[in-house]
Amino acid sequence: MTDTEEEIKDPWTPLAESIETGDATAATALLESLDTADAARAIDRLEEDQREKLMTIVEPEQAADLLEQIPYAQVVDIVDGLEPDKAADIIEELPSDTQADVLGDLEPQEAEDILNEMEPEQAAGARLLLTYDEDTAGGLMRTEFLAFPKSATVRDVVEDMRANAEEYSDLDVQYAYVIDDDARLTGVLRLRDLLLNPSRRSVADIMLSRPLSVPHDMTHEELARFFDDHHFVGAPVVDADEHLIGVVLAEDAAEAEVEAAADDFLKMSGVSGGEELRSMPLRIRSWRRLSWLSVNIGLNVMAASVIAMFQGTLEAVIALAVFLPIISDMSGCSGSQAVAVSIRELTLGLVRPLDLLRVLLKELQIGLINGLALGILLALVALLWKGNPWLGLVVGAALMINTIVAVCLGGLIPLVLKRFDRDPALASGPILTTVTDMCGFMLVLGFATLALGRLT
Amino acid sequence: MTDTEEEIKDPWTPLAESIETGDATAATALLESLDTADAARAIDRLEEDQREKLMTIVEPEQAADLLEQIPYAQVVDIVDGLEPDKAADIIEELPSDTQADVLGDLEPQEAEDILNEMEPEQAAGARLLLTYDEDTAGGLMRTEFLAFPKSATVRDVVEDMRANAEEYSDLDVQYAYVIDDDARLTGVLRLRDLLLNPSRRSVADIMLSRPLSVPHDMTHEELARFFDDHHFVGAPVVDADEHLIGVVLAEDAAEAEVEAAADDFLKMSGVSGGEELRSMPLRIRSWRRLSWLSVNIGLNVMAASVIAMFQGTLEAVIALAVFLPIISDMSGCSGSQAVAVSIRELTLGLVRPLDLLRVLLKELQIGLINGLALGILLALVALLWKGNPWLGLVVGAALMINTIVAVCLGGLIPLVLKRFDRDPALASGPILTTVTDMCGFMLVLGFATLALGRLT
Repeated sequence: MTDTEEEIKDPWTPLAESIETGDATAATALLESLDTADAARAIDRLEEDQREKLMTIVEPEQAADLLEQIPYAQVVDIVDGLEPDKAADIIEELPSDTQADVLGDLEPQEAEDILNEMEPEQAAGARLLLTYDEDTAGGLMRTEFLAFPKSATVRDVVEDMRANAEEYSDLDVQYAYVIDDDARLTGVLRLRDLLLNPSRRSVADIMLSRPLSVPHDMTHEELARFFDDHHFVGAPVVDADEHLIGVVLAEDAAEAEVEAAADDFLKMSGVSGGEELRSMPLRIRSWRRLSWLSVNIGLNVMAASVIAMFQGTLEAVIALAVFLPIISDMSGCSGSQAVAVSIRELTLGLVRPLDLLRVLLKELQIGLINGLALGILLALVALLWKGNPWLGLVVGAALMINTIVAVCLGGLIPLVLKRFDRDPALASGPILTTVTDMCGFMLVLGFATLALGRLT
Repeated sequence: MTDTEEEIKDPWTPLAESIETGDATAATALLESLDTADAARAIDRLEEDQREKLMTIVEPEQAADLLEQIPYAQVVDIVDGLEPDKAADIIEELPSDTQADVLGDLEPQEAEDILNEMEPEQAAGARLLLTYDEDTAGGLMRTEFLAFPKSATVRDVVEDMRANAEEYSDLDVQYAYVIDDDARLTGVLRLRDLLLNPSRRSVADIMLSRPLSVPHDMTHEELARFFDDHHFVGAPVVDADEHLIGVVLAEDAAEAEVEAAADDFLKMSGVSGGEELRSMPLRIRSWRRLSWLSVNIGLNVMAASVIAMFQGTLEAVIALAVFLPIISDMSGCSGSQAVAVSIRELTLGLVRPLDLLRVLLKELQIGLINGLALGILLALVALLWKGNPWLGLVVGAALMINTIVAVCLGGLIPLVLKRFDRDPALASGPILTTVTDMCGFMLVLGFATLALGRLT
C-alpha cells in the first residue's frame, strides 16, 4: 500500500497531526477536501481532546459548520469540553434552533456561563427558545424570519429585501409574514405574489389572510402530521396570544422524527442513555450499557427462580431443561413483535393509550393462530426426540398458552406505559420478558408436575 | 355516555354508515370535521372493503388527499383493491413521487393495468420514475419543476409565472432552473433575484451558475447528509449526462429517512414483511410474524440441543437448569446493545463494513468490563443461593466469557451482513442469539462437567 492510498483511507491521521501542531490552515484544507460523510468519520476518529482543540484553532464560523456535519451526540460532548467564551463564539454561528438544543443539553451552570459570554441579543433569543420543550414547535422553531406590518406596501418589502439581501440570503426565505400592531400573525406573503403585483399595493391586500399557524406546544409527531397534510416548507409558530414567535421548517420537524425513531430503536435494544457512539469514552459507554443490563439481570434471576421451585420435577424429567430456554426465547420473540407494532401504531397515532380492548382482541387472534402453530411445532420436536407424546403435549401446550400471553401483553404494555407517561421503547422489553419467562417456566414445569407419571 | 360523546369518540361508526349508504357528502363532511390524526384513525378502523368503497364514492382529488393522510402501508392495500380505471383517476391526483412509490409496490401486472388507464403524459412520467430505485434521488424526486432556457429574460419568466399562476401554485415553487439547449442544468434562479433585477436582464446573468445537483442514484442516506450540509429546500436531480430530470425536496429525503428508521425498528423486533398495522387482514399479519418465528424456533431448537449433550452433568447438578435461561437472556441483551450501536453507526456513516478491527477492539473493552461485572453479580447470586463457591465460579465465568463473545459478535455481525448486502436489522438478532446461546450453554455445562466433583 502506498502512502497516498493510506492517506485516502485514513484522513484522520494527518488531521490529528495538523491539530497537534496547531496548523489550522492544514486542518481546514484537509477537511474541505473531504465530503461530509468522510469529514464526520475523520472527526469521529480523533481523540476527545483533539476534537476540542480542532474547534479552538479554526474560525468560529468554520467550527460551527463542522458541528453541523457531525452526529449531534458528539456536538454536546465537544461544546462541553470548551471554555465558555470559545463555546459562545461558536454557538453564535449556529442556527437558533441548534443553539437552544445544545445549550439545553449541557449542565445548567455551564449553559449559563456560555449564555453570559454570548451577544446579549443572541443570548436573549436562546434563553427564550430554552423555555420550550425541545420536541415541540417552540423548541424546533427558528427565530430568524421576515415579518412586515400590515401597513407596508409591496415596494416597502422589496426595498427592505434589497437593502438586506446579504443578511437574508442566510435565511433561505420562502415566505414573509404580516403582523398587526400587537405582533399578532395576520397574513402570509408569498414571494411570487410580490413579483406579480404593482409596487403601490399594500401587503394586506395581497397576503393570504387567516394563515395556518401551529401553537408553540405542538409535538413533533403532530408537526409531522401537519406537514404531511399541508405541503409547506415551514409554518409560523404562535404563542397562546397568537403572537408570531418563530418559524418551524418541515425539514426540522422531519429531523426530529428521524431522531425519535433512532432513539426508539436504540432504547428497544437496551441502549438507554441517549445515542452511543464508539468514539465516546469507554467509561460512559460501559456504564450506560451496564445500568440497563444490571436491571435486567435482576429481573432474569427473579424469573428463573420459578425454575428452582420445581426442582423435583426437573430432576425427574431432565429433558425439560432443554425446553426452558426455547420457551423463554420464543415467547420473547412473539411478544416483541407485538410491542413493536404497538409502539409504531402509537407513533402513527392509529392507536391511543385507552384502546386496550381493540389491541387485546387483535393480538388474541394472532396469539391463537401463532401459538397453535408454534406449539404443534415444538410438540413434534419433543415427540421426535424423546418419543413421548406426553412430553410433546406438555411443552407444546405451554408454548401455545405462553405465546398467547406474550402477544397480548406485548400489545398492551406499550399502551399502558404511554398512559402513565413512561417511555414504551425502553421499558416494554424488560417487563415483557420477565413476565413471559415466569409464566412460561410455570406452565412447562406446572404441566410436567401434573403429568409426572406419564413423563418418567 | 351521551350520543354526542360517543360520536366524538368513534367517528368511524358514522363514517362507516355513510359509506355503506353511499352518502359521499356525509362522509366528506365528517372527514373534513376531523383533524388529520383522527381522520387517519377513523379510516384505519374501517373494514377493508369500506375503505375501498370510500375511495370510489368521493371525488378522485379528495380520495388522493385522504391517501396522503393515512399510513403508506394502507395506501398500497387500498389501491390494490380498486378497479384500474378508478385507481388511475386517484393516482393522477397524487404527487409524482408518490405515484411511483405506489405503482412500484403493486404487482407488476396491476401497475401496468393502472398505467394504461392513466393520461399518457402522466403515465410516461410515472414509468420514468419507476425505473429508479425508490430509495435514491431518482425514486424520491418530483418531476414537476420550473425550467427556463438560458436565453430567457426576467420578463419572460415573470410572464410565464403570471400566466400559469394557478398551475404553479400547486408546485410550492421555491426555485426555477435554467437549462441549456440540450436540457442540461446550467443554473438556478432564486425567486427573490427575479424581484431585485430589471425585467430586460437575461436569466443567464442573474442565475447562480454551476449549481449543486445530485445524481439520480444518490442514496437516501447520502441525500440526508447532503441536506444536512447544504440547507436547501430542494435540489435538482440530474442523470448521467447532466440532464435535469427532477427535483428532490429535503422534506422527501427526510421522510425516506424516517421510514428507513421505522423499518429498522420493526425488523429488529421481528416484524419483517414491511409495516404491520392492526387494520391489515389477520392472515397476512399472522403469516408474516410466523414466517420469522418459525425460522427462530428452528434456531432455538438447534441451540438448545447443546443442553441435551450434557444431560449427565445437568442430572448431577440440577441447579444449573436455573442459570441456563439467565445466561441465554443476558448474553442476548449485551449482544443486542452492540448490534444497535453498529447499525446506528452504519446509518450515520461513522463505520464502514471493513472497519472490523476497530469495532472488535472497542467492543472487546466493553465486553471485558461488563462481562466481569455481570459475571461477579451472577456468581454472587449462585453463591448466596447454594452456598457453593464452585457453582458461582462456573456460572460467573461462563457469563463473563459469553458476554465478551456476545458484544464482539453483536458489534461485528451487522458490518459483515452489510458487507454482503444483507439487511443487518433483520438478520443480526437471530444469528447473534443462536451463536451466543450455543456458546453460553456449552460454557456453563462444559465448566460444570470439568468441576463436577466440586459441584455435587
